[in-house]
Amino acid sequence: MHSTFFRFCLIILCIQPSLISSAQTFISDMDQMKWEKVAPGVWKTTIGQMDLNPLDYSASPKMQALTNLGDPAFPFNTEATLSQKTKERVVVRLPLEEKEKIYGLGLEFESINRRSNVYTLKVDHYGGVKGYTHAPVPFYISSEGYGVLINSAKRVKIHVGVGNRKDSHLPPYVDRTTGGSAWQARPTSDAVEASIQGEGLEVYVFSGASPLEVVQRYNLFCGGGVLPPKWGLGFWHRMHTQSSDEDVLQEIRDFEENNFPLSVIGLEPGWQSFAYPCSFDWDSTRFPDPKGFLNRMTEKDIKINLWENPYVAPSSTMYDPIKPYTGSHTVWLGEVPDYTIPEAREVLLSHHQKNHIELGVSGYKFDEVDGYDQWLWPDHATFPSGYDAVEIRQLYGTIIQNTFTEHFRKQNQRTYGLVRSSYVGASNQSFVIYSDYYGHKGYVTALVNSSLAGILWTPEIRSANSSEEWVRRFQTVCFSPLMMLNAWSSGLKPWSFPEVTDIVRENIELRIKLMPYLYTEFHAYEREGIPPFRAMVLERGFESATKKVGGKLDDVKNPYAEQALLEVTDQYMMGPSILVAPVFTGETDRKVVLPAGNWYDFYTGDLVGNGETITIQPTLDKIPLFVKDGALIPMLTTLDVEDANQTLEVRYYGSKPGSFQLYNDDGNTFDYESGEFTITDLAVSVKKNKLQGTQKVSNNLGYGYKQVEWVWMSR
Amino acid sequence: MHSTFFRFCLIILCIQPSLISSAQTFISDMDQMKWEKVAPGVWKTTIGQMDLNPLDYSASPKMQALTNLGDPAFPFNTEATLSQKTKERVVVRLPLEEKEKIYGLGLEFESINRRSNVYTLKVDHYGGVKGYTHAPVPFYISSEGYGVLINSAKRVKIHVGVGNRKDSHLPPYVDRTTGGSAWQARPTSDAVEASIQGEGLEVYVFSGASPLEVVQRYNLFCGGGVLPPKWGLGFWHRMHTQSSDEDVLQEIRDFEENNFPLSVIGLEPGWQSFAYPCSFDWDSTRFPDPKGFLNRMTEKDIKINLWENPYVAPSSTMYDPIKPYTGSHTVWLGEVPDYTIPEAREVLLSHHQKNHIELGVSGYKFDEVDGYDQWLWPDHATFPSGYDAVEIRQLYGTIIQNTFTEHFRKQNQRTYGLVRSSYVGASNQSFVIYSDYYGHKGYVTALVNSSLAGILWTPEIRSANSSEEWVRRFQTVCFSPLMMLNAWSSGLKPWSFPEVTDIVRENIELRIKLMPYLYTEFHAYEREGIPPFRAMVLERGFESATKKVGGKLDDVKNPYAEQALLEVTDQYMMGPSILVAPVFTGETDRKVVLPAGNWYDFYTGDLVGNGETITIQPTLDKIPLFVKDGALIPMLTTLDVEDANQTLEVRYYGSKPGSFQLYNDDGNTFDYESGEFTITDLAVSVKKNKLQGTQKVSNNLGYGYKQVEWVWMSR
Repeated sequence: MHSTFFRFCLIILCIQPSLISSAQTFISDMDQMKWEKVAPGVWKTTIGQMDLNPLDYSASPKMQALTNLGDPAFPFNTEATLSQKTKERVVVRLPLEEKEKIYGLGLEFESINRRSNVYTLKVDHYGGVKGYTHAPVPFYISSEGYGVLINSAKRVKIHVGVGNRKDSHLPPYVDRTTGGSAWQARPTSDAVEASIQGEGLEVYVFSGASPLEVVQRYNLFCGGGVLPPKWGLGFWHRMHTQSSDEDVLQEIRDFEENNFPLSVIGLEPGWQSFAYPCSFDWDSTRFPDPKGFLNRMTEKDIKINLWENPYVAPSSTMYDPIKPYTGSHTVWLGEVPDYTIPEAREVLLSHHQKNHIELGVSGYKFDEVDGYDQWLWPDHATFPSGYDAVEIRQLYGTIIQNTFTEHFRKQNQRTYGLVRSSYVGASNQSFVIYSDYYGHKGYVTALVNSSLAGILWTPEIRSANSSEEWVRRFQTVCFSPLMMLNAWSSGLKPWSFPEVTDIVRENIELRIKLMPYLYTEFHAYEREGIPPFRAMVLERGFESATKKVGGKLDDVKNPYAEQALLEVTDQYMMGPSILVAPVFTGETDRKVVLPAGNWYDFYTGDLVGNGETITIQPTLDKIPLFVKDGALIPMLTTLDVEDANQTLEVRYYGSKPGSFQLYNDDGNTFDYESGEFTITDLAVSVKKNKLQGTQKVSNNLGYGYKQVEWVWMSR
Repeated sequence: MHSTFFRFCLIILCIQPSLISSAQTFISDMDQMKWEKVAPGVWKTTIGQMDLNPLDYSASPKMQALTNLGDPAFPFNTEATLSQKTKERVVVRLPLEEKEKIYGLGLEFESINRRSNVYTLKVDHYGGVKGYTHAPVPFYISSEGYGVLINSAKRVKIHVGVGNRKDSHLPPYVDRTTGGSAWQARPTSDAVEASIQGEGLEVYVFSGASPLEVVQRYNLFCGGGVLPPKWGLGFWHRMHTQSSDEDVLQEIRDFEENNFPLSVIGLEPGWQSFAYPCSFDWDSTRFPDPKGFLNRMTEKDIKINLWENPYVAPSSTMYDPIKPYTGSHTVWLGEVPDYTIPEAREVLLSHHQKNHIELGVSGYKFDEVDGYDQWLWPDHATFPSGYDAVEIRQLYGTIIQNTFTEHFRKQNQRTYGLVRSSYVGASNQSFVIYSDYYGHKGYVTALVNSSLAGILWTPEIRSANSSEEWVRRFQTVCFSPLMMLNAWSSGLKPWSFPEVTDIVRENIELRIKLMPYLYTEFHAYEREGIPPFRAMVLERGFESATKKVGGKLDDVKNPYAEQALLEVTDQYMMGPSILVAPVFTGETDRKVVLPAGNWYDFYTGDLVGNGETITIQPTLDKIPLFVKDGALIPMLTTLDVEDANQTLEVRYYGSKPGSFQLYNDDGNTFDYESGEFTITDLAVSVKKNKLQGTQKVSNNLGYGYKQVEWVWMSR
């Protein structure tokens, strides 16, 4: 947790009038915002007095990286940035051009374009209300190359280009009765308007030459992305909730026998003596010797991740020390710690350090930190810190992430875990979000949107109605930040659908072999804030194939003659070069929208198109992957991700010259921050239609691959 | 609109300590509420300072009727009624017994028991969030015989028996991990807790010997129920939006030709020169001569109802006078009047009186006064009265209802119309709620719940996918407060499914012939607050067949092992004697839960059961109706509801002695309030197994039926 003091001490620079376009003058009872520059390309305004500051629970800005990214101008007319403090609310109004598209606002499962909608950004299970989600981050990105963060721990209600003011430059008045086709159910407005019920908030503006640069700047301002330990990018398997230490050992043997790789075992509620609420103490019947159990796991090179919810059972050994710091209401009759209080965090950490981490536990899965209202404390609950229960709920997952991220960092040990809620400033936290919701298409849309919100998301696989669905879901999770089978209830294994076991294994192995490429991209996330998995709208040369459909008046189905937006939310980029196009159960063909430039089939190297929409007929065994012209994809030739002595296969696609700066380090510690890493410069030159591959290892500390096999995929 | 002054001047009587059970002492940081008696069986407490008071827009309490209802004691331990004012909220906590059932909270479409749920009571379209509905009335009724109104124009968030406090008498702590079957996903709590974000609210408690008596007391406190004009209980038909005066005349001829009764024609948006937003001015091409058109309607004894939304088009002749009283934001680019300002209401009324009502318009359908957020003004909008935009939205429909109800009353003319939102204190308003939602089962549940919230609801028919659905929906709407085909989009007529035209006609005719019975029951609503259509839980001797089902842990479908409540929401009472059991498309049989006592088939008079659940095989032509032992059902023998000279058929069911006080009046004015009505005492005595019917007309002002034909149905 860094002090806000530092953030505020950054050079403050008022916007020069010369930077302001004087295109239009606003007449309004609102106040013009005053902007301070707090980092290159980042500005801030403060309205009123806020309570909890979400950014207090993120890492400090990466100032050097922000400086490297350049120093662009303030992105719009400051005269059009307005605020208002009323008796009950703080209101902000920011300008919007007619053709602008707006993305972001957190982990949405349904669409990517946020325009013409209202979102109530509330940490909750997903479902029902627009903006109720596990990570309702009040940060949006414009297609015009800027981003806005409404920094508040309150629930931000945001009207994105909808809700027209009388004093706005309105679209012309068009009447519905007389049947004008220009009539709009939601008339285009010239503003984003957001409000909170509370005393104050901050607004940050992030400039950028492109939406990707805006995302980078936001992530860097929040401390950059996270570089997971290498084991975190391997295969995760979660045990049935009632499993014992012996069951875990048997499961590991089964993985070996079935020839499936395995990095992490997750233990679900039953590892504890009590859960719902939790004791945080080992169950003595299922895990009589935790230390011995964890030693055996270390011998087998398997990491252990523990499930928890934050609610403290009366029978927990943590109960007495935490009791002075709990709120007025219980959750499942367990007490609710107020982790805004440093002493409460200390109780949490010392219990976990002593009982789990010291014994070898690698990380956690923090469940039930999101919602629903019928399970968590009411909005009117009171907490000993005096902070509003709404704010505490909004930040609960974030504070826990931050607490453990910092704690593991102090041990010089990287962690990687799961959490069911997140919020502002989370890019540097070593956690991945998941959901109880289980729509496969929604999962892919969430993966797309996570890249626009500074968060990581796993489309975990839990079960399937058919072997086809099993494969399709496995393929998606293999191409995501965390590759996990979550079998806490089903007890399923990767080989539970025997007819597709080989296919599932091959997909997992492909992901593992892509580790050099993927790990390098996570390093770019950490260092430059570039999300490793990202929305197509962050890709240059991608024309989102959005178009309006519908609009036919109907008394049952469409009484407002509303139009829906067709968007591309079912494909995404993994790193700079690989386009992933997951297939859903029942699909025999699918469309893929290719950005500008030549694109090649990952598996065959064949040219498939250039800046166009293609239709493919995918087979069951492979997830469609497409590679950019000139791309180098470094891959392992064994499944041993630690072994730098193995031959590195570098696949090259297309015909343009290309290069790749391969990153590698010890995979476990933070020593890379003091230079303990290796960069291998891979390059392909084209001379007289002849391809030539070169490699150059710099700063070789044993993490450079010595043998490289070049594979010319498109020849 | 009555002054709150009057309400507050009622005798204030502090609760005597002797009335308080001293069963348990609460340790809490909350304050004990102080109760004042404001009417017999009605108590009030005020916490803080509220802004808009919803009860300012209801009629004055019917004090004489409240006195007649008796003077019961305060229903629970006042020590357990607690409140708290925090920086941002007002919180109330009221006790709950373990076995208590809670009903109400407005127009819900899904269930009747509110326990173990959280509702955010927000005026909105129905869908998504629990408590977002057209009439989210913060009034609940306990199975133990009391009711509570949280009187606030803010959105009340209410936790009904869910959300356990540390200082509560909690259920014993049970752990999930160890598989205890007593573990609850939502542990039973001992309180209802509600909160608003704001400065103050009022709480009212209503005592009663039964849930029905509680509802009566609430309705009487809000001015009693509404007695519609007789034409309002006839058949309503809404025209296609683009219809002209000639189309209306043709439609009336078509009704005559097809031999269908018709009372009211509703004109949809196109009657206006502009709609979305509205001009409130006649369209000169479709209605070139409104006065002449309305004169012709009067000649044909057809009432005209006009559709409107409240948003004022720049081209409206009402635009200039209303402009000073409009809010910061527009809706469909129309200005939003602030009708909390008396001058704004005056502009509205004078325009409507001059342009519509004086010409003969009978009433209105006020649309778009509910939601969604993407259409209406934002919560942060500002209004010239200075009232919070949230409160103005919550009361918008109520204020408009009240404005027009009072206006028509001043003309000594009853109106009956439609509105898409309502709230506290609406029982006396001459409006019926409808929805864009169109689930048939949900419509019946809404009809059930409306009786628990002081509102009327129409399950209007708009379209159907089959002739079976057409019939089933028609049957339901024929047994509801407003019998209407809403064909604004579909253009359908009652005879649009020719194979069932006769069935549809017979059902409409049955409803019309039941007018003497139904009109008497509406009079009981007006005078005694007894809802004419009501939930089975308001019926003595009804054992709600609720039971818990489910609870099987499943990672996809039920990860919290939640149980669902099976409830009876698909049958209801019409008046004191008729049980209505609508049939839904595709059903070949259905269960009917009969309260205690003998019940008879309405059509055959056959005994069907007593205090039991029966299964019936309904035919398509009839809606299943069951009648209580000893019931007298007075029915017309013609379709002329005005003609008191026709023979009155009185059906008698069962074998117990019975009576019915038949009410009748001029059907149009408020003269009944000064005694201008007729009561006909109908009675059946049983002597030596012989039935004898008698009638006695008192206060005969020409509204008594002279000829009675007794029909002994069960002989």
